[in-house]
Amino acid sequence: MRRTINWAGDAIEIIDQRALPGVYRTLRLSTIDELIDAIRTLAVRGAPALGAAGALGVALSALIHDGDENAVRADAKRIADARPTAVNLSWGVRRALAFLPDGHELVLAGAMALLDEDERVNRKASERAAEFVLDRCGRRPLRLLTHCNAGRLATVGWGTALGVVWHLRAAGHLDHVFADETRPLLQGARLTAWELAEAGVPYRLLPDSAAASAIARDLVDCVVVGADRIAANGDVANKVGTYPLALAAARHRVPFVVVAPMSTVDPEIPDGGGIVIEERPAGEVTEFAGHRVAPANAAVFNPAFDVTPAELITAIVTEEGFYPFG
Amino acid sequence: MRRTINWAGDAIEIIDQRALPGVYRTLRLSTIDELIDAIRTLAVRGAPALGAAGALGVALSALIHDGDENAVRADAKRIADARPTAVNLSWGVRRALAFLPDGHELVLAGAMALLDEDERVNRKASERAAEFVLDRCGRRPLRLLTHCNAGRLATVGWGTALGVVWHLRAAGHLDHVFADETRPLLQGARLTAWELAEAGVPYRLLPDSAAASAIARDLVDCVVVGADRIAANGDVANKVGTYPLALAAARHRVPFVVVAPMSTVDPEIPDGGGIVIEERPAGEVTEFAGHRVAPANAAVFNPAFDVTPAELITAIVTEEGFYPFG
Repeated sequence: MRRTINWAGDAIEIIDQRALPGVYRTLRLSTIDELIDAIRTLAVRGAPALGAAGALGVALSALIHDGDENAVRADAKRIADARPTAVNLSWGVRRALAFLPDGHELVLAGAMALLDEDERVNRKASERAAEFVLDRCGRRPLRLLTHCNAGRLATVGWGTALGVVWHLRAAGHLDHVFADETRPLLQGARLTAWELAEAGVPYRLLPDSAAASAIARDLVDCVVVGADRIAANGDVANKVGTYPLALAAARHRVPFVVVAPMSTVDPEIPDGGGIVIEERPAGEVTEFAGHRVAPANAAVFNPAFDVTPAELITAIVTEEGFYPFG
Repeated sequence: MRRTINWAGDAIEIIDQRALPGVYRTLRLSTIDELIDAIRTLAVRGAPALGAAGALGVALSALIHDGDENAVRADAKRIADARPTAVNLSWGVRRALAFLPDGHELVLAGAMALLDEDERVNRKASERAAEFVLDRCGRRPLRLLTHCNAGRLATVGWGTALGVVWHLRAAGHLDHVFADETRPLLQGARLTAWELAEAGVPYRLLPDSAAASAIARDLVDCVVVGADRIAANGDVANKVGTYPLALAAARHRVPFVVVAPMSTVDPEIPDGGGIVIEERPAGEVTEFAGHRVAPANAAVFNPAFDVTPAELITAIVTEEGFYPFG
């Protein structure tokens, strides 16, 4: 299966997630400006995929500015700053930058190693999470609910929360998936539904605000989501709407499981209060497919993420086990 | 100010809420089929406005079928069944039907009395609610959050939850309003924002899933919503998304206030478990302004309402006082 993001000789190639589900197309990004635009407009998104974008961005800059370390470091900073919340972006940048003194070919080799590792690590984390879910819910066909897209499209290849779906499906323990549509950019309706449909997994799409109803009516065995940044204490920043979902799950004693690679953990931030939450443009809320849905000049509150406190989370599962450790 | 729904000589006239905020237009409904279509497609919506639609619908049928009580009763049943959740619809039908033996002119007079009463009653309930909010939150410029549209457009004239906004504004105690966009049909973005803009009230529109973030960040002093049906024990059915909002408000000790006329109380249903929740068509979620946003044939979970348990509600305020009484 094609990677969400990859190296293509002298450019970065990505699946353009803005065009899905209507159009499946790839984009070649051959300048740092093109990459930053792709990150900002969410042509490539998802914390693990952003880690790969950061690393490949440094590799691209090192190729363009062969030998000019200062120019590469300036590009690296711009890339890392393109979006603030997912810690993986700056982590990927740093990982690739470490190879800079060794020349652009080794920077690229380092970035490609990170891409290989991403898929391996997410398979491992989601396999562990699937085992945990089966232990908690019983080895029977389960009904999972997920928010946003934490699938193949959010990573280099396999997925985190949707990785659990793939594992449970293979083991014969999946009934169906509830996919929150995930306003304002509809990553659930556009991307998660597309991945589930492609894989032939039965699913039901729902407005984000209906998730609590599904949980209250006992239609959901487990909630599984990804993460954009995990604070040292286990507070989780993830796509806006995750926190109210955790509140509903806690009230109805439905397990709430976060699946993420260790690269999403930010040990420098003690708790969720320190995580910078990106504010996105008003047009994402006031317009839809070029169609205005609110009065002109409507002011908007449009945070891209929210913070779920650790106490509401049943488990954070990484490739190394449950976080926080011990 | 023009009524949301009114009698126009030989037909029912409504503001067509499907066309807002882009186009302000009125519709003349001169047959029962036209009325039922307007109710089903939400050209007229909101529990109190549906009460008026039910009553005027019986008046229209009585005019059309002058003297044929059976024909009117058959129409009345079809009108009452057009949507299942808002109890006001069948209440309005029943109120008008009581005048049927007296002739169509008295049926109409009874319906018009209900329309007058609606505005008076909602002014009273929202005035009481505004006093309660000020007592709880302090007499200072307050930041309210509301969901869906419980304004003038949801009633004959004044509004329930937005009635609180009008009262606080007049008293100089309103800072601004957070308006949930309210997926899937965006009554918040299209109708509440339009009403607030028309009235010159400062507001911010937000995705439903961001409301918990606004509350968690201490940006909201009070949540105020309407209701579609209130069970005898005080459980409240209201637009889907109300329940997760109540969970967030409870966690952060933000008062959660329901404002509704007594006609919304259904004493025959002991608790929320007995309220029939309407399921709406999949296309409301999978398409947007004629633009498909999900894979073809996506299955959908699209309940129009949810139930908030009484224990999460700070107060239900009616024109007669706090419900349940005593």
